[in-house]
Amino acid sequence: MNINKGILRIACAQVNLTVGDIKGNLLKISEYIERAKSLKVDMLSFPELTITGYPPEDLIYKSGFIGMNMNCLKAVAEKTDGIKAIVGFIDNIDGRLYNAAAVLDDGHITAVYHKRKLPNYGVFDENRYFVPGEEPVTTLIKETRASIMICEDIWKTDFLTDHHISSVGIIVSLNASPYHMGKMKERESQVCGLAREYGVYISYCNLIGGQDELIFDGQSFIVNNRGDLIARAGAFREELLVAEIEPSLVPAEESRRPVKYSRRLDDIPEAYAALVCGVKDYMAKNEFKEAIIGLSGGIDSSLVTVIAADALGSSNVKCIYMPSMYSSEESFRDASALTAKLGVKLIEMPINSIYEKFIDALSPFFKGMSFDITEENIQARIRGSLLMALSNKFGYLVLTTGNKSEMSTGYATLYGDMAGGFAVIKDVPKTLVYKLSKYRNTLDPVIPENIFLKEPTAELRPGQKDSDTLPGYDLLDTILKAYIEENRGTVDIAGKGIDREIISRVAALVDKNEYKRRQSPPGIKITPLSFGKERRMPITNRYKDDNGCGG
Amino acid sequence: MNINKGILRIACAQVNLTVGDIKGNLLKISEYIERAKSLKVDMLSFPELTITGYPPEDLIYKSGFIGMNMNCLKAVAEKTDGIKAIVGFIDNIDGRLYNAAAVLDDGHITAVYHKRKLPNYGVFDENRYFVPGEEPVTTLIKETRASIMICEDIWKTDFLTDHHISSVGIIVSLNASPYHMGKMKERESQVCGLAREYGVYISYCNLIGGQDELIFDGQSFIVNNRGDLIARAGAFREELLVAEIEPSLVPAEESRRPVKYSRRLDDIPEAYAALVCGVKDYMAKNEFKEAIIGLSGGIDSSLVTVIAADALGSSNVKCIYMPSMYSSEESFRDASALTAKLGVKLIEMPINSIYEKFIDALSPFFKGMSFDITEENIQARIRGSLLMALSNKFGYLVLTTGNKSEMSTGYATLYGDMAGGFAVIKDVPKTLVYKLSKYRNTLDPVIPENIFLKEPTAELRPGQKDSDTLPGYDLLDTILKAYIEENRGTVDIAGKGIDREIISRVAALVDKNEYKRRQSPPGIKITPLSFGKERRMPITNRYKDDNGCGG
Repeated sequence: MNINKGILRIACAQVNLTVGDIKGNLLKISEYIERAKSLKVDMLSFPELTITGYPPEDLIYKSGFIGMNMNCLKAVAEKTDGIKAIVGFIDNIDGRLYNAAAVLDDGHITAVYHKRKLPNYGVFDENRYFVPGEEPVTTLIKETRASIMICEDIWKTDFLTDHHISSVGIIVSLNASPYHMGKMKERESQVCGLAREYGVYISYCNLIGGQDELIFDGQSFIVNNRGDLIARAGAFREELLVAEIEPSLVPAEESRRPVKYSRRLDDIPEAYAALVCGVKDYMAKNEFKEAIIGLSGGIDSSLVTVIAADALGSSNVKCIYMPSMYSSEESFRDASALTAKLGVKLIEMPINSIYEKFIDALSPFFKGMSFDITEENIQARIRGSLLMALSNKFGYLVLTTGNKSEMSTGYATLYGDMAGGFAVIKDVPKTLVYKLSKYRNTLDPVIPENIFLKEPTAELRPGQKDSDTLPGYDLLDTILKAYIEENRGTVDIAGKGIDREIISRVAALVDKNEYKRRQSPPGIKITPLSFGKERRMPITNRYKDDNGCGG
Repeated sequence: MNINKGILRIACAQVNLTVGDIKGNLLKISEYIERAKSLKVDMLSFPELTITGYPPEDLIYKSGFIGMNMNCLKAVAEKTDGIKAIVGFIDNIDGRLYNAAAVLDDGHITAVYHKRKLPNYGVFDENRYFVPGEEPVTTLIKETRASIMICEDIWKTDFLTDHHISSVGIIVSLNASPYHMGKMKERESQVCGLAREYGVYISYCNLIGGQDELIFDGQSFIVNNRGDLIARAGAFREELLVAEIEPSLVPAEESRRPVKYSRRLDDIPEAYAALVCGVKDYMAKNEFKEAIIGLSGGIDSSLVTVIAADALGSSNVKCIYMPSMYSSEESFRDASALTAKLGVKLIEMPINSIYEKFIDALSPFFKGMSFDITEENIQARIRGSLLMALSNKFGYLVLTTGNKSEMSTGYATLYGDMAGGFAVIKDVPKTLVYKLSKYRNTLDPVIPENIFLKEPTAELRPGQKDSDTLPGYDLLDTILKAYIEENRGTVDIAGKGIDREIISRVAALVDKNEYKRRQSPPGIKITPLSFGKERRMPITNRYKDDNGCGG
């Protein structure tokens, strides 16, 4: 057993990459290599699939994609004079593709590791693209032996009993680990436990930034071989995290050198920061500068407006208030107060005269029929069309304002309030909308108090309240979490002491509105199970958990 | 080597199942078992995942789903007195799930086979749900040894060199093989080749019916141990296919008994039948009776109307013609002629007065700006809203009319002509739209000749033609097939002698319109690569195949 000695300066480049932007990613990688060189870093690690961005999805099948990624890796290698860098890329061996990491050393590719554990659940489809690796790969950083891992590897460590781990002083892990609330605790618990169990240092480098529905939080960290955290980068921002370590096969002494790390945010501020980062990145990476929001004066569109202003700057956010005959003065006052405080432009555009023409056109066919969801949806669709007209004319991106409770139950109008490019709070349950809004107001009370106090309403018919149609949001969100995130059956949920009839009604709403969700814009995942590619429900589906099997 | 002897009567139950409808599927399975019993069938095989329908997707994660499927299997077993049935289901062994087939014999489950090759490409995600099986399973049908396979197994036959195959007289294959044009040739070539190579009979039972974007064509077939087809069921219809065979380890004599099979349709009639079946099943399985279509008088909406009438009956189809000031008299004449011939109701609803009110509302903001795509989209969105209003009021399903060439290039209005529940010809390129329409007219000339002759136009501005914006459709469809279905690069496509600048322009349109496709309704897959779950492109994506790697 060889004891590794000597102080190492190691670093994680917690960078914001863009999927497919191989050229842009190369520039970013080069910049961080230069910064690390100037700080005399011995080993610099990047996130998973650094070159291509994560996840590249079916771009991988494009004929020139893998080749361009290889060329780029060679170009990065040329920049590694005097430093060791570990960079993620896609390796191609006789047409078999690997999620890989290259060790770049003084201008050369000296080793290549192939990810051994490929996640194929939740948002992940890695078996679709990659073949699993079979061998560990180690490399020397000065005299310390480092073993490379990629993301899932560190969660499925049955192969860690490999003989090779006994001589390893540090595990260098490249990650693209998507955010959800509470995820950081899971990561630290897993990684610190492993470091303690095997007596190794671990450097965990994570991606930051938004990619469609995913948001990567960064929070890269380094733990010593006692399992103590010795450095951590911030959340949702780029950072070069540098730490000096003294790997050894005997446990590090406690707090030998001062730990330096960013304080972790609490759950609510962290989720808020995730939403801001998600909006900022979706806009920037898709080349939008200005956003437009249909502001109703309710809590959902108010929160979205504040998030957008924080992400883009107030001057890049436009709000449009589109009253019908059912809109209250209170709504306009609240919308005006919010935008005034934020310094966001508010446009008013009444929809009555357009609505009347719709009703005129339809009246020959609707004779003798009463007002129902049809007329409500017409109002919402006029608003959607006006927002899209401003988007088309001025190049604004429309941010939609529906929350997860609404997306779940279909309490939203397809092509109406669901019309837009990015659904900011699509994965935020209504009860969490309130918490996030309250939190944001503690920094600066921009959301008028009245918006918190009044009862939620869509204002699509006289005196309408959400509670006419849906159970109260506390109850509703409890049922939805159990039914959707936990996949529990209605009988099981009723065991929580909730009325069985209400549960069945909510479950039926969730099931029958799959078609609406299928046509909704992407939004930011912040819960363990969002409505996106990690929940693949058929639209055509007659499963009811309580209809038995007629035997 | 034991020679198997004796005549067997075997059957394939080519049934239309519904995902999640465990109770309904049980009734269907029972019905076919009874029919097979009355025909003295020795062995009856069903399609893959008979009990749950295919693909059940994330329903599998619902807590009660697997258990209900097991209960149903037991209920089916009880019905197998005097017959052997092979039924697909999901097996659960200590929490590991298998795509499985049970051998049911005289009231008992006598064997269970676990699918060994799990497809995880294209539309398939089976690694997400299942663990692969490791063992062959055989069962005796009278004295003949049968080996069971499930779908992908028969395409990836590296394990067929197993010793066990030498004693097998027949392979019984359970399938849920989705349709695309030309797929049947691929299947027959693979299966007949295998039968010949290993000297075995093969019974290939396929599912029929639509499930969201997938359509299963059936065309179940049986081949002898010389590789000759001896029976085949029809396409897109339920059928109990029965054949008498005399399995033996020496090759069958040529045409010993008369072959009986349905003639295979040519490619175009087959694709047309697929679209009719897709519409019929999406409507029925989602409990819609009547459909509504925005009929413009152009070829796309005309074809969709005819398909809908064939699928649902003319009386269940409503068309609505919604002229603006840019609509021509010719369009109305063509729309009227079509609906009159078909016996479909045509509603006329001009949109001018609504359009004017939209323009009024927006004019303070659009001052001094010229007419552009914004105003075009407003017209399309008014039409979408009117269609949805009729849908909401009367429970019609809106069928959209965009073709694949339009979906590819974004030549369609989100929330406008893209608004609806089911996108019938979403996977049909414009050139194929003409071929399908011509074919349908050979049966009965319902589509007026003028619709074929006039130049395609969206009629959203004066004198507009599709060719103002897009290359001619022959050229466009050639580029799109190369770029999308074959994933070829722009330089490579230019090698076909096509102008490089046009290719780059088309490729850029395809790339930048991913966001529209993400919000489009599901449609029927009829090509080898459709815009659905088998093409998973990121929206946020800066890959350009000709922007090199700046080194």
